[in-house]
Amino acid sequence: MDQLQRAIIERGSVLSDDVLKVDQFLNHQIDTNLMMNIGRELVSRFQDSKITKVLTIESSGIAPSFMAANKLDVPLVFARKKKSLTVKDNIYSSGVYSYTKQEMNNITVSNSYLSSDDHVLIIDDFLAHGNAALGLIDVVKQAGASVAGVGIVIEKSFQEGREILEKEGYRVESLARIQSLEGSKVTFLEELATK
Amino acid sequence: MDQLQRAIIERGSVLSDDVLKVDQFLNHQIDTNLMMNIGRELVSRFQDSKITKVLTIESSGIAPSFMAANKLDVPLVFARKKKSLTVKDNIYSSGVYSYTKQEMNNITVSNSYLSSDDHVLIIDDFLAHGNAALGLIDVVKQAGASVAGVGIVIEKSFQEGREILEKEGYRVESLARIQSLEGSKVTFLEELATK
Repeated sequence: MDQLQRAIIERGSVLSDDVLKVDQFLNHQIDTNLMMNIGRELVSRFQDSKITKVLTIESSGIAPSFMAANKLDVPLVFARKKKSLTVKDNIYSSGVYSYTKQEMNNITVSNSYLSSDDHVLIIDDFLAHGNAALGLIDVVKQAGASVAGVGIVIEKSFQEGREILEKEGYRVESLARIQSLEGSKVTFLEELATK
Repeated sequence: MDQLQRAIIERGSVLSDDVLKVDQFLNHQIDTNLMMNIGRELVSRFQDSKITKVLTIESSGIAPSFMAANKLDVPLVFARKKKSLTVKDNIYSSGVYSYTKQEMNNITVSNSYLSSDDHVLIIDDFLAHGNAALGLIDVVKQAGASVAGVGIVIEKSFQEGREILEKEGYRVESLARIQSLEGSKVTFLEELATK
């Protein structure tokens, strides 16, 4: 997705060989037009699936998932990173380690919003080691629901996330695939169609 | 806003005289169509202001702000509830006590995304005691920016948030104003136009 690759090059910054900061348009300041196009593109990649729900994780997953859920005309559910006091009913829960924040989070989804009838598209901002996606898949399984696939905005293809997910049989669609961040430079697996 | 009042009555639940749960369409599962209409309505109420940025707070503020920022064609910035390791630059910060979660959060905004040129529309899901809004106003002031107003999805009019904000000279626009949650019943200040 050229518009996204351009945003990464022009507005992202490489903090280390592992860390790409996209606070300018995705993680802190949000470019809603770009997020809408990301949502539309994710939907087009899964349009053969009969999705009944989009599942993401707070906070950075919400913006890129918003338009996808809207276009699919299904509810968007975001997993919480810790249990809120106002969630009184039963929950599905899974442990997710965040390398970026260097902390363990317990992600939770109320059992009111996922059921065994659901066919779920999982969307997240980044795919790196695969921990968040695996946690969300675990939650979907606990609900007895099925996974339509995993839609990712930015994949760090030099880390093992995609391989793990594909080995377990999940379809992964990533809109930008980064081969390397070495030398403070973003190199994509597939370069821009038009420079 | 009738569509919102109906959602509150039909899909919300009153947990106590103080607590309204709207997890079904706003705080956990998100009705994106309703959120888009909320964003459009908030924009219409502030259309005379020359807004340059929409500021909200993670996570529940993101969905109702998304369409507002898109319609205004300005960036959406969400304050974080704790400092992320990837935020390396200088930040504006303010302490916000959450009654719902019974905890103190330090909300932060990178100084890259708010400047003295900005005229900021603050949006949040709930207005109760006013703490979150006051924290966001504090952040805007630290940036030397100005506040266009405060847009709220659901106001608990029986708590002091609006009074505090108005006394300090801020314009508050709330799409649903709740007079009382007593007797497990939602009573609005202005009842539905058509029943």
